[in-house]
Amino acid sequence: MGQPLPATVIDNALNYAVALAKQGTRGANPLVGAVILDADASTVATGYHRGAGTPHAEVEALNALATKFPDNDRPNPAELTMVVTLEPCNHVGRTGPCSQAIIDAGIGTVIYAVIDPDPAAAGGADTLRAAGVTVHHHSTHAGANALNERWSAAKRNHRPFVSVKIAQSLDGKIAAADGSSQWITGDRSRDHAHHVRSIVDAIVVGTGTVLADDPALSARLRTRGNYTLGGEQNTHVLADQQPLRVIMGERPIETTAKIFTEPGGETLQLNTREPRTVLTALADRGVEHVLIEGGAHITSAFLAEGLADEIYLYQAPLLIGSGTDQAAHNSIRSLNNQSLQQAWDTQAYQIEDAQPLGPDILIRLVPKPPATPKN
Amino acid sequence: MGQPLPATVIDNALNYAVALAKQGTRGANPLVGAVILDADASTVATGYHRGAGTPHAEVEALNALATKFPDNDRPNPAELTMVVTLEPCNHVGRTGPCSQAIIDAGIGTVIYAVIDPDPAAAGGADTLRAAGVTVHHHSTHAGANALNERWSAAKRNHRPFVSVKIAQSLDGKIAAADGSSQWITGDRSRDHAHHVRSIVDAIVVGTGTVLADDPALSARLRTRGNYTLGGEQNTHVLADQQPLRVIMGERPIETTAKIFTEPGGETLQLNTREPRTVLTALADRGVEHVLIEGGAHITSAFLAEGLADEIYLYQAPLLIGSGTDQAAHNSIRSLNNQSLQQAWDTQAYQIEDAQPLGPDILIRLVPKPPATPKN
Repeated sequence: MGQPLPATVIDNALNYAVALAKQGTRGANPLVGAVILDADASTVATGYHRGAGTPHAEVEALNALATKFPDNDRPNPAELTMVVTLEPCNHVGRTGPCSQAIIDAGIGTVIYAVIDPDPAAAGGADTLRAAGVTVHHHSTHAGANALNERWSAAKRNHRPFVSVKIAQSLDGKIAAADGSSQWITGDRSRDHAHHVRSIVDAIVVGTGTVLADDPALSARLRTRGNYTLGGEQNTHVLADQQPLRVIMGERPIETTAKIFTEPGGETLQLNTREPRTVLTALADRGVEHVLIEGGAHITSAFLAEGLADEIYLYQAPLLIGSGTDQAAHNSIRSLNNQSLQQAWDTQAYQIEDAQPLGPDILIRLVPKPPATPKN
Repeated sequence: MGQPLPATVIDNALNYAVALAKQGTRGANPLVGAVILDADASTVATGYHRGAGTPHAEVEALNALATKFPDNDRPNPAELTMVVTLEPCNHVGRTGPCSQAIIDAGIGTVIYAVIDPDPAAAGGADTLRAAGVTVHHHSTHAGANALNERWSAAKRNHRPFVSVKIAQSLDGKIAAADGSSQWITGDRSRDHAHHVRSIVDAIVVGTGTVLADDPALSARLRTRGNYTLGGEQNTHVLADQQPLRVIMGERPIETTAKIFTEPGGETLQLNTREPRTVLTALADRGVEHVLIEGGAHITSAFLAEGLADEIYLYQAPLLIGSGTDQAAHNSIRSLNNQSLQQAWDTQAYQIEDAQPLGPDILIRLVPKPPATPKN
């Protein structure tokens, strides 16, 4: 074992690892980055988590190390330091425990920034120490701490990370006065929404949506080179990963509904209208990331309780308007706000980015962070 | 006089002039660009219209020519060709007639793409010919024709170009359930809206807005270097150009209202609720560009009649929601659409651009052009 690397080297490596982590699929959580340094503090390999079902950052970095150096010219792993934004996991998830992979690779030192908040995954540091790896918890890196703040909070509260999808006209409508609601947003928006489905563990809709729209709720991806939707040629294929399909609500759903009969993930009906009850039940089943797809009452119930960790707001370039009877349908129902001040206090968001999707625009929002106290 | 320039040279010069025109202030109409070529088809000067009250494109190009060449080394103006996207104006507006400026400069040839649709400004080509200038109408340039299509249509219909401002929450609300509506969008959005006020000729609001909000409706620009709004220090100054302040509607407005007492443009009350009546009255007064600022019923009346030439949609990163009684206020009221298909047929727009304004997002929309018939 050589000298431990200086704190500034670790800080710089964590800066790099955070930047790598942010290259992970947007919406895929947790975002994790890893950097492997040699005894001279040179970066010899890196990795980041690209989304559910893909290798964790640590394993990606170890794979990169193996690819970069031939077997007979690899640095002595005992002299290598892995710097990682999150404590290496201890559980056998979809990808095997990272702590075991690090031990198997013979890495001498591991420095991690954030303790794994997931009870099912925690304990990796102890496992590493028990195997003789030198382990340090470098807890002061703001970037690493901020990276998965809401993900960690969700884990601590034993609930999945919650993404909310809203697709509406520019004036916040999801249907016209006569109730017609199909095809507000366009092909490109729907493709994007299917991509999001393919990276979450579960989708939640209300019984009303199932009864009204009879959705299949599968994740379908467009076949490369064929860009026609809806017509004679259906050129979509089912994504490799299909989310659990969850119906919440108390109305009975016929077993002939597409959500049961069409190919896709497993289907589960939860006989409740309480968002927190749904989230607890899903966390109990190991769901880490859920997408709320509506209808408006379901979406509003999650928003009103402050349970949205991010919002995908798809806006079609269309105005629908509302009649004097207010009959046209709002994308959002009651959020229990009476005044504008109450709305700002409870429903303020931050625009993370905005991107064109064909004629539409997608705005990704996260809850506005609490104001930083002044020094 | 030398040989006339070949058509390809003119086309290329018009391409360039169109690109220059588009650098003009967004929302300022008409957009015009001008290029001056010498006998060898080299570009010797250019100009474009930067907005109301600034020199027209032709005058800017002539000024650029004068600046570029010293008096004793200027190309013979009789051998120069000015290529301009719009027929040079004939009227004495805020900036003097361009046709006279071209004659005074001694330019030999003028080629223009689009006939001035404004009866008050038309006739420039005849004036030029009468003074001995060679004039060609090059009518086949698609880019030049498209440049001010809606501006020209408005002129032909004897109405101003209509910009509509909407400031709302992400779910299309302009007030909360209790009616509180101040400060939905932030400082940067309000600054932008004041900039737009400073480039239009008139602002229209309904009597309801005047009675509810008592706005001054002046164009106020932030003093450079001071970026605090609303508090003790009011660091805004009145813009040099103040739009006509127009109240439409039948309810009486007290002469103590700020729209009468605060500094700004002239104030006019039009005793009507008909958008077309307002626009005709304004066109009669020489108003070329009007901004509709609400309230929701007024905005919706202009939209429902297809009179919006562009929309500035300011969205604050906030959700307000709507109670079961639908009490919270919608940014858009009835557009006379019953079905989604009707909305697509009459209220489809095209997103021209989207830009962050502090925490808000501004989306600029224009009416969706009719589908191009297939060949």
